[in-house]
Amino acid sequence: MIRRQMKLVAMVTLLAGTLATYAQDTDKTTISAIYQNALTSYDSYNNLKELCSKAPGRLVGSKASEKAIQILKAQVGKLNPDTTYLQSYITPSWRCKSKSQAIVYYGSKKESLNVVNLGLSVSTPDKGITGEILEVHTLNALDSLGSKAVKDKIVFFNRAMDNSKTTTFEAYGGAIDQRANGASKAAQFGAAGVLVRSLSTEHYDFPHTGVSRYKEGVKKIPNISISTNDADKLSRINKENTGVKVWIKSDTETIDSAETANLIAEMKGSQHPEKVIVIGAHMDSWFNAPGAHDDGAGCEQMIDVFRIFRELNIKPVNTIRLVLFMDEEMYQSGSKVYADFVGKEKKEHIVSIESDAGGLLPLGFGIDAGDSVINAIQKLTLPLIDYGIYKTGKGYGGVDIAPLKQFGIPLIGLTTNSQRYFEYHHSANDTVENVSRREMQLGTAAIASMVYLIDKNGIK
Amino acid sequence: MIRRQMKLVAMVTLLAGTLATYAQDTDKTTISAIYQNALTSYDSYNNLKELCSKAPGRLVGSKASEKAIQILKAQVGKLNPDTTYLQSYITPSWRCKSKSQAIVYYGSKKESLNVVNLGLSVSTPDKGITGEILEVHTLNALDSLGSKAVKDKIVFFNRAMDNSKTTTFEAYGGAIDQRANGASKAAQFGAAGVLVRSLSTEHYDFPHTGVSRYKEGVKKIPNISISTNDADKLSRINKENTGVKVWIKSDTETIDSAETANLIAEMKGSQHPEKVIVIGAHMDSWFNAPGAHDDGAGCEQMIDVFRIFRELNIKPVNTIRLVLFMDEEMYQSGSKVYADFVGKEKKEHIVSIESDAGGLLPLGFGIDAGDSVINAIQKLTLPLIDYGIYKTGKGYGGVDIAPLKQFGIPLIGLTTNSQRYFEYHHSANDTVENVSRREMQLGTAAIASMVYLIDKNGIK
Repeated sequence: MIRRQMKLVAMVTLLAGTLATYAQDTDKTTISAIYQNALTSYDSYNNLKELCSKAPGRLVGSKASEKAIQILKAQVGKLNPDTTYLQSYITPSWRCKSKSQAIVYYGSKKESLNVVNLGLSVSTPDKGITGEILEVHTLNALDSLGSKAVKDKIVFFNRAMDNSKTTTFEAYGGAIDQRANGASKAAQFGAAGVLVRSLSTEHYDFPHTGVSRYKEGVKKIPNISISTNDADKLSRINKENTGVKVWIKSDTETIDSAETANLIAEMKGSQHPEKVIVIGAHMDSWFNAPGAHDDGAGCEQMIDVFRIFRELNIKPVNTIRLVLFMDEEMYQSGSKVYADFVGKEKKEHIVSIESDAGGLLPLGFGIDAGDSVINAIQKLTLPLIDYGIYKTGKGYGGVDIAPLKQFGIPLIGLTTNSQRYFEYHHSANDTVENVSRREMQLGTAAIASMVYLIDKNGIK
Repeated sequence: MIRRQMKLVAMVTLLAGTLATYAQDTDKTTISAIYQNALTSYDSYNNLKELCSKAPGRLVGSKASEKAIQILKAQVGKLNPDTTYLQSYITPSWRCKSKSQAIVYYGSKKESLNVVNLGLSVSTPDKGITGEILEVHTLNALDSLGSKAVKDKIVFFNRAMDNSKTTTFEAYGGAIDQRANGASKAAQFGAAGVLVRSLSTEHYDFPHTGVSRYKEGVKKIPNISISTNDADKLSRINKENTGVKVWIKSDTETIDSAETANLIAEMKGSQHPEKVIVIGAHMDSWFNAPGAHDDGAGCEQMIDVFRIFRELNIKPVNTIRLVLFMDEEMYQSGSKVYADFVGKEKKEHIVSIESDAGGLLPLGFGIDAGDSVINAIQKLTLPLIDYGIYKTGKGYGGVDIAPLKQFGIPLIGLTTNSQRYFEYHHSANDTVENVSRREMQLGTAAIASMVYLIDKNGIK
């Protein structure tokens, strides 16, 4: 998940009223049934196991991504939706051809480092490149150092995520500039390559990848992420020795055009089939990651909403449209293709809901919409406070649904307990074993309840 | 942790007021500093690693429990408390001499099963015992079946925890009778031994132990826990075959008297050294468990409160007394010894606070006290809602502090996200790797803030 800003406002003032004022008894009964169903079902967790074991590393354009589309399509198909189809399109892509490498040389010693290519990084020559290490903690530090100090160096951006922040997304936002823009900044001063400290709250050996961008007109230099443990080690070695050098090797390629698709399925509305509630997540994951939390869990939660509706015989008033997006991680091409489609389709979209914050304990929903919509959804979802969904308010929807804002469609994103998220995110540690079935299913139940409440009651 | 009942009342009505009405600005500043300090420190997590690697399986009376006392005493000692001492005493105990075993025989086949002795179980003869399997889901089922059906059988209690419950402690409460009383009930009808489905919300291979009790005057028969996966397997085999037999082997002994101790340390009050705030957790863990969540995390959180107070130069008005209890899991002997001491000491205890719900995301505090005390603490801790501590209200304090209720001392227990708790509890899966440092430290910060607020402002 790429996450920009997230501001959640506690619903303190709203809580003043009693819940009973707002919640219909039938709503409460249905919500209870949804939670019971979700918590006792293993289907979505088993689906997640299938997806992550058969199609790990499903970056757009990869074979694994094609397999993921087929797996998810078959999983959805079992629930007999009214419509299922692929929204196919062509997109440029990129891939990591072989595992990147890094070795630090100091005195007469050398040690290899746990690294991974950052997304969109260029290759080194076959024999790799070697350069002296220059450790900095900010991009601006390079301005002060100037070209003389930076030229031909491997610039090592080593600012840690700020663990004093109570939400990890805030800490992520405070460190991401190194990964996103570090390489272009270093290249402007003539650096040979870049190592970036992994964006993780943990001290361990997993390197984390993620998208990086090259500024136009600037030389593209290799851009590699190093695990937090090895970032600490490299920093120590660099302090204790002079002339520390690093050899790095990167082997990647851009792909001009890859055929891929979004996966769309619908439960047709019984009264207003022309009105749509979109529920979405993204199918792709980074090449090094099984992609269980990011965002296999989101896909399986959304598919499970269909299962729950079928099993509880909830017939939606409006059309519930499942959209599993491709390519959230690199170009957001699936998101753009779907938004283009919505622009032409001219159906009324009531809301769009995304799950891309991991299969972790859900705490609420972020809403990106006007105040009256936010207030209405807060009121509508008051019964969910009893289920721990207490942080619903102004906030961020999701990367994939973001372009729908241009059409005035309210964006809603599931908010989870973020404490463990950056122990997994964009790394080989993002495994099914690290997803708690119950936590993931509480998220499913929260989303299914939100869909049910909005579908039945509208947003008034 | 043994957990009886837990009723948490959402503080909806209280939230009506604005937080600013109650919270002093200095309190807010200090709370912010406490959280920042806790989240950026690795000390307590490293302490937990030390405890669980050097003293796993620290059941009262074991060598590991002696080592645990020494490790924790040294960890506390580094923080230079005003007093540190051992409250030594003698207690009966019990131990598992070697790993219990179980093999199912059906047709010409046999398969071994993942099992663990339940606490206080008697041994089988050296060659084990063999009996036909009788699967039941309730204790009452034996009444209907009668002695003829039960005699010489291995009774297999296979009622699963009810995953439809939103808090896992409720599901635990609904299944624990099988573990606690199943053996005595089966023995009354002449059963040879008992297998009990592990109390876990997960389907996997870890068997979970826990205390079981024999009713007086009833024959003590071997009492063994089987993993949830193997409980399912055994049930399937038993359905598909006739005359399915199980061989079980248990090798345990009771210990008449073991020398052990509670560990006590104090930061003396600057104005009221004679008034005491107790903060506690328990040092012991089951023989098969590293005891990271249960309750190493609680011990390290409480020790870390001292560290934070020292580092932030918070000088308590009243005496903060750390009590690390021995033997929560079997006889609660440490708890009784401390309560006896409090009865004789006649110092005023303001409150007692326990952490025994795992190093998981904290959500609030359960308070076992009169309504006026509950209301006062809810008001006092309103600033903690911003940190996700929103579920503070009437509830359960903790097993170790429970006897302090006789003296009218308010009991306060940390409430955590329980979703993952029974993936770890009383099993070999209760490892440091399954503790998130950030989640554990949010608990530490919540407790330190609670101590700070009560110490400074009193309970009005």
